Amino acid sequence: MEDQILERLITLRREFHQCAEVGWLEYETTIKIIHYLKSCGLKVLYGKSIHSERMGLPDEQTMKEHKKNVNCLEVDFDTEEIFMGYTGAVGILDTKRPGPTVALRFDIDSNAIEEDESQEHIPYKEKFSSKNRGMMHACGHDGHIAMGLEIAKKISEEKNELCGKIMLIFQPAEEGVRGAKSLVGAEILKDVDYILSGHIGFMAKKNQVICGIDGFLATSKLDIHYYGKASHSGAYPEKGKNALLAAANCAINLHTLCQFSQGMSRINVGLLHAGTGRNVVPADGKLEVETRGETQEINDQLLKRVDDVIRGSATLYDVDYEVIRMGSAPAYTCKDRKFVSLVENLLNKYDFEVMNHGHFGASEDVTYMFHEVEKNNGKGIYMLFGTNLKAPHHHSSFDFDEDTLKNGYIVYKTLIEHFNRR
Amino acid sequence: MEDQILERLITLRREFHQCAEVGWLEYETTIKIIHYLKSCGLKVLYGKSIHSERMGLPDEQTMKEHKKNVNCLEVDFDTEEIFMGYTGAVGILDTKRPGPTVALRFDIDSNAIEEDESQEHIPYKEKFSSKNRGMMHACGHDGHIAMGLEIAKKISEEKNELCGKIMLIFQPAEEGVRGAKSLVGAEILKDVDYILSGHIGFMAKKNQVICGIDGFLATSKLDIHYYGKASHSGAYPEKGKNALLAAANCAINLHTLCQFSQGMSRINVGLLHAGTGRNVVPADGKLEVETRGETQEINDQLLKRVDDVIRGSATLYDVDYEVIRMGSAPAYTCKDRKFVSLVENLLNKYDFEVMNHGHFGASEDVTYMFHEVEKNNGKGIYMLFGTNLKAPHHHSSFDFDEDTLKNGYIVYKTLIEHFNRR
Amino acid sequence: MEDQILERLITLRREFHQCAEVGWLEYETTIKIIHYLKSCGLKVLYGKSIHSERMGLPDEQTMKEHKKNVNCLEVDFDTEEIFMGYTGAVGILDTKRPGPTVALRFDIDSNAIEEDESQEHIPYKEKFSSKNRGMMHACGHDGHIAMGLEIAKKISEEKNELCGKIMLIFQPAEEGVRGAKSLVGAEILKDVDYILSGHIGFMAKKNQVICGIDGFLATSKLDIHYYGKASHSGAYPEKGKNALLAAANCAINLHTLCQFSQGMSRINVGLLHAGTGRNVVPADGKLEVETRGETQEINDQLLKRVDDVIRGSATLYDVDYEVIRMGSAPAYTCKDRKFVSLVENLLNKYDFEVMNHGHFGASEDVTYMFHEVEKNNGKGIYMLFGTNLKAPHHHSSFDFDEDTLKNGYIVYKTLIEHFNRR
Amino acid sequence: MEDQILERLITLRREFHQCAEVGWLEYETTIKIIHYLKSCGLKVLYGKSIHSERMGLPDEQTMKEHKKNVNCLEVDFDTEEIFMGYTGAVGILDTKRPGPTVALRFDIDSNAIEEDESQEHIPYKEKFSSKNRGMMHACGHDGHIAMGLEIAKKISEEKNELCGKIMLIFQPAEEGVRGAKSLVGAEILKDVDYILSGHIGFMAKKNQVICGIDGFLATSKLDIHYYGKASHSGAYPEKGKNALLAAANCAINLHTLCQFSQGMSRINVGLLHAGTGRNVVPADGKLEVETRGETQEINDQLLKRVDDVIRGSATLYDVDYEVIRMGSAPAYTCKDRKFVSLVENLLNKYDFEVMNHGHFGASEDVTYMFHEVEKNNGKGIYMLFGTNLKAPHHHSSFDFDEDTLKNGYIVYKTLIEHFNRR
Repeated sequence: MEDQILERLITLRREFHQCAEVGWLEYETTIKIIHYLKSCGLKVLYGKSIHSERMGLPDEQTMKEHKKNVNCLEVDFDTEEIFMGYTGAVGILDTKRPGPTVALRFDIDSNAIEEDESQEHIPYKEKFSSKNRGMMHACGHDGHIAMGLEIAKKISEEKNELCGKIMLIFQPAEEGVRGAKSLVGAEILKDVDYILSGHIGFMAKKNQVICGIDGFLATSKLDIHYYGKASHSGAYPEKGKNALLAAANCAINLHTLCQFSQGMSRINVGLLHAGTGRNVVPADGKLEVETRGETQEINDQLLKRVDDVIRGSATLYDVDYEVIRMGSAPAYTCKDRKFVSLVENLLNKYDFEVMNHGHFGASEDVTYMFHEVEKNNGKGIYMLFGTNLKAPHHHSSFDFDEDTLKNGYIVYKTLIEHFNRR
Repeated sequence: MEDQILERLITLRREFHQCAEVGWLEYETTIKIIHYLKSCGLKVLYGKSIHSERMGLPDEQTMKEHKKNVNCLEVDFDTEEIFMGYTGAVGILDTKRPGPTVALRFDIDSNAIEEDESQEHIPYKEKFSSKNRGMMHACGHDGHIAMGLEIAKKISEEKNELCGKIMLIFQPAEEGVRGAKSLVGAEILKDVDYILSGHIGFMAKKNQVICGIDGFLATSKLDIHYYGKASHSGAYPEKGKNALLAAANCAINLHTLCQFSQGMSRINVGLLHAGTGRNVVPADGKLEVETRGETQEINDQLLKRVDDVIRGSATLYDVDYEVIRMGSAPAYTCKDRKFVSLVENLLNKYDFEVMNHGHFGASEDVTYMFHEVEKNNGKGIYMLFGTNLKAPHHHSSFDFDEDTLKNGYIVYKTLIEHFNRR
Repeated sequence: MEDQILERLITLRREFHQCAEVGWLEYETTIKIIHYLKSCGLKVLYGKSIHSERMGLPDEQTMKEHKKNVNCLEVDFDTEEIFMGYTGAVGILDTKRPGPTVALRFDIDSNAIEEDESQEHIPYKEKFSSKNRGMMHACGHDGHIAMGLEIAKKISEEKNELCGKIMLIFQPAEEGVRGAKSLVGAEILKDVDYILSGHIGFMAKKNQVICGIDGFLATSKLDIHYYGKASHSGAYPEKGKNALLAAANCAINLHTLCQFSQGMSRINVGLLHAGTGRNVVPADGKLEVETRGETQEINDQLLKRVDDVIRGSATLYDVDYEVIRMGSAPAYTCKDRKFVSLVENLLNKYDFEVMNHGHFGASEDVTYMFHEVEKNNGKGIYMLFGTNLKAPHHHSSFDFDEDTLKNGYIVYKTLIEHFNRR
Repeated sequence: MEDQILERLITLRREFHQCAEVGWLEYETTIKIIHYLKSCGLKVLYGKSIHSERMGLPDEQTMKEHKKNVNCLEVDFDTEEIFMGYTGAVGILDTKRPGPTVALRFDIDSNAIEEDESQEHIPYKEKFSSKNRGMMHACGHDGHIAMGLEIAKKISEEKNELCGKIMLIFQPAEEGVRGAKSLVGAEILKDVDYILSGHIGFMAKKNQVICGIDGFLATSKLDIHYYGKASHSGAYPEKGKNALLAAANCAINLHTLCQFSQGMSRINVGLLHAGTGRNVVPADGKLEVETRGETQEINDQLLKRVDDVIRGSATLYDVDYEVIRMGSAPAYTCKDRKFVSLVENLLNKYDFEVMNHGHFGASEDVTYMFHEVEKNNGKGIYMLFGTNLKAPHHHSSFDFDEDTLKNGYIVYKTLIEHFNRR
């Protein structure tokens, strides 16, 4: 029986690995999830109803184009909003019996990576590698989806023994920290007492589960656009407004900002594209930027200075500008270590090793959800499910041991049974 | 009879307008020209034999791809080198009789512009607009080719009345000032006594011919590549080598260089592309740059300083760099005004207005040829053939009055008859 | 008799060479000039009455200190305003007879240069070198004063033969183009028909007089101050506001501005002082800047861009700023060449060579006066009095042939006699 | 008896407060210290014999001038080398009996600060404020000297009860981290088993002694000089080589370097002086810079990048440069916490509170001595003597509670008695 669970988890993981879709384009992924949740008898929320303001949307053309990649499922529900980028879904089991509301969060988007096509890469060898060119599950979110759906099956089977309410949140666009804020803004978490989430890999070793992860960095992802005026650079240089030089100045000066007494900060201008041709004063410039801070305060101070540099650079060259927030996540530190100990104790009976603290040192937008739930006196916990990796996260050869899926499933199952058993 | 000449000029111009091809990709254009010259009984040089070092070549993929656009002519000569980008051709009539060697130069490449497809645009309306997407004769070189081929016909018909040697040089890649240096380096001009060239449009008005044009600016076209090292900008910022910041510094500091007591100078960084993603220290940066100088000395001094800035910017961020010369043309000032007066007098008998001086204030790589010929005590002259333009040069709606072609033809014919009449 | 004139000119020149005083500190110089003009019986205007807005004033402490250097003349007129920096004077001969108003302008300030103390330097050897340390007449203004005073003597002696009105303007603070605007603003030139001025040296050779000089460049002299906030750079870097980096950015970007299709432009950041100590975030930054333009339009456009760069650099580092205009002069081109020819003809009878055109290619604030007079349909002329120089202008060994003084005197005398002879 | 000690400590402290002298100019301070040590019967090393390479020396003129401020003591030892800036002294008590060599280090220089002259400032009110204008003991080194001299008295009185060797090192030029390296290079510490040092104030509160201080930052102090070429910026801009723009570029780009995954880093360009006048291309530029790193490795990596930026900026503007190391100190972390505990236990019997750890988070060049002694398997300890401060260190109103002097004295006495009691 236990073996059947792992088998199903693997089947699900491979199915979603094959239809890897990047943030806001998780059309097929979302449709399949909804279909599965409905088939388990869960109530499902999706589309505009679970979204507020979405950051870092692809352009319209890309959104339209990707629809062609979707293998049309014969489904009996409305998919129109999904194809407008309102992706993700929330499956709900409301027992109507008194009890806590427990939310589990699974991220579902892939990376924008071309998948390895060598025989050493198991997904390729075993023929379940991504069918979408340039999109690949290289962060384990395919595994997260599988855990979530198997949990859906489990709770629907056991619904008569459960109390309270269980929400399975399938979040789009975690890469680039874009999706969580939209879901939180739609207030889907407003009555949640416990929010649980986790990730395959990172610092946890094979057969370890680390709970009580903290050290999430605050981060912001910005696109900066400068708009100048073209002119023939030989004939009328003074008639142009040079957006390239504004962008170049912005890039250099942004990199002077990372000295804070309160702790670590980071800035990176990862991309600069400006100008059209050799003999034209460049009329456009674009920068892709990210900031990080060990604390929210640092990132906020940094962003204030970033804004100065953006505006100042525009003024220098008399050009216009626009800043588009492409993603963000707040810092998060686990403050309720007692709750972590409780979880640790619940998990100690299994044959994986349980550790009760880890410092993430990176960003994850689940922190929006943690803050939302804590605001209402709820509690949150983030866990890492250790595994052996074939290559680091976000690498074209990334792959994990599939039996890790069962550890994750067991963790979620155990916690639900603790909170929601009648 | 005269009307037939104009008719043929128009037919030729329209034929070449249709197969517009950008620099170094003038495959079909070159094959057609060779075919025509041979049919006139001229000796034809082409391929590697007329080239030395070619600047600003497209990448191999582009060169291979464009071959598919060529309507295969059944020709009885070897075209292999042409498809390797050794474009252009030289038609030669050697009378074996004593007399001067006179070279006429016609540029043959198109612009990288999408042609206007509105009914107001005559080439579109009359159905001879470019068949090659993104390539368009928007500078009148199609007309120059037509003049050259009609002159080929004329001298082949009159060869028994002529003395000396006549060379018709069909030069590729004038846009971006790339092709002339390659031809000069192959020594095709080494015995030339007179070099004649001209252009449709610019400052000359309808029914004017301006001879003795000078004020050609020295110019250099450079591509600068910086090669750094990628690293995760959040996790290991110090392991990266930032090619974006090197490029940004280079751009800003290049723009500080334009103060010379000797006269006008210009610099422009027209394009800057650097980096791959928001959270990666950028490992590459590319700039497209051009310099100009009122004199050769200014441009040379400027280039020396440009080199300092390129190297210094690489050192700043500990990155490697490469500079690729994409094009160049020397400054040129007409020093033999007597020769200009001679030409002016020869042309005065026609019903177009002849002016004997114009200041170009721009660049043209025919100046390489003028310097080469003058080095050997030869003489050169550049002329503008006035016309009405529908839109400025390099505009998608550019078009000229086709009867202008006859003026150009008459000018060349008259000068040949003066120099090479037995 | 002629020899006595030269002797007196030399005596005067040496007297004023000895009391060299920089702009707005010409206390002793002014008092001596007034005294002399009064002793000739001229009406004298001076103090606040001849000034409006003075640019580039020294600080109060300096103004107070310099008073100690003045050898107190026993004078019977009020000198209080002079010691407040209202320097310079205007001597007026009003014949009350109908006739034109002719103004002669002499600049009176010295340079801020330490005078050469070697035996090769005649003023030192002959013991008339500057008694004021760090101040030296290294531009010939001592000679200009001498000419003006000798002219005062002449016109007072001949006043019965003259008509109209003659004004002798002794202008302070020409170095740094500061003083002329203040005099013009006080409307002292409002009824002038002819304004004459000249300079010893520059392009004119020994025994040449060049009249009809033009090609005066527009120029602006600015001091830029940035005000930030200090903080310990190790302990609290984020609490500082870095005025040094604002100033550095300003300097670099100002130097990118000199490309104008309409003609020559210049910018220079000649001085940058910022910060107080190695471990303090710099709270202050100062730049001394000048701009130049071949035309007024160019300089105005340039100043517009300069302002952008100053403001933008302040915004970049969130610091305050202040711009103080330290000097300025408009461009000037001599438009009335007929008037120049008239002057040329008047001067042709002397044994110096007269040339009728020279291109100055530099700045002089007499151009404010020329524009003011031309606005009222008057005429202006600027002349160079050729000499042999021991060292270039503004050099610590600068010296000129003193017999040049007579040529200048003759020129002014001749022109006055032409315009104001009864 | 105890009261007499405090009385003497106060008298000594006030005497040295009055003759505050900045680094390398501690002429009078050094002479007085030597005099006192000799009067106690100690062997004294001083002058060239205790120095190797001195960083950050004042210029010769300043060194010569300051001699005039010294109240000449009638002393019977040679002071010539002291007036050449070979300041500081080492008093040695060699018991010739077997036992450890224990070194105590006291820093003796003042700050370059103008002392507060208000009645609230006790040194002024009580008439012992600094007699040297612009020099003030605002860091407590006057107190350190007093402790060291009172210890000299103590050990000379008790020499028959002691074993081993005791060295009292009076180090010059601690401000700017300049002096320690010179003493270490002269090998005066080569046989030392224990090195003890401490500081008044900082994080320790009144009546606290914190021992086992670590977290000393690595730091480097650099002066950077750029040498360009002057030229008239209006007439011949291209003939100049702009050292101001090189310096400005250097400043901005240095500030981009502070992102290291291994920990905290700092850079500051605290001063930039460039150029001479508004209309001259600036021929010189100077920057005063400091770097810091949480570890030696970080500071070394940072210095490598600093060097790139300095060289690159010189190349950009084709100017020469020179880098002068003005000071440095290595990072230091206390690795022998057992030794700290031993010290803590020894001190616990007194009526001040003893704490056994503090994180300094700043730089002190005593770390050179700690590394030298540990290299030879010796041990070092750094302590803070808590006090009430009237104003922060390096402030013109800085002052401390003088009874703190006794705590410091007790600490040193106790440790010597522990290590060197027969």
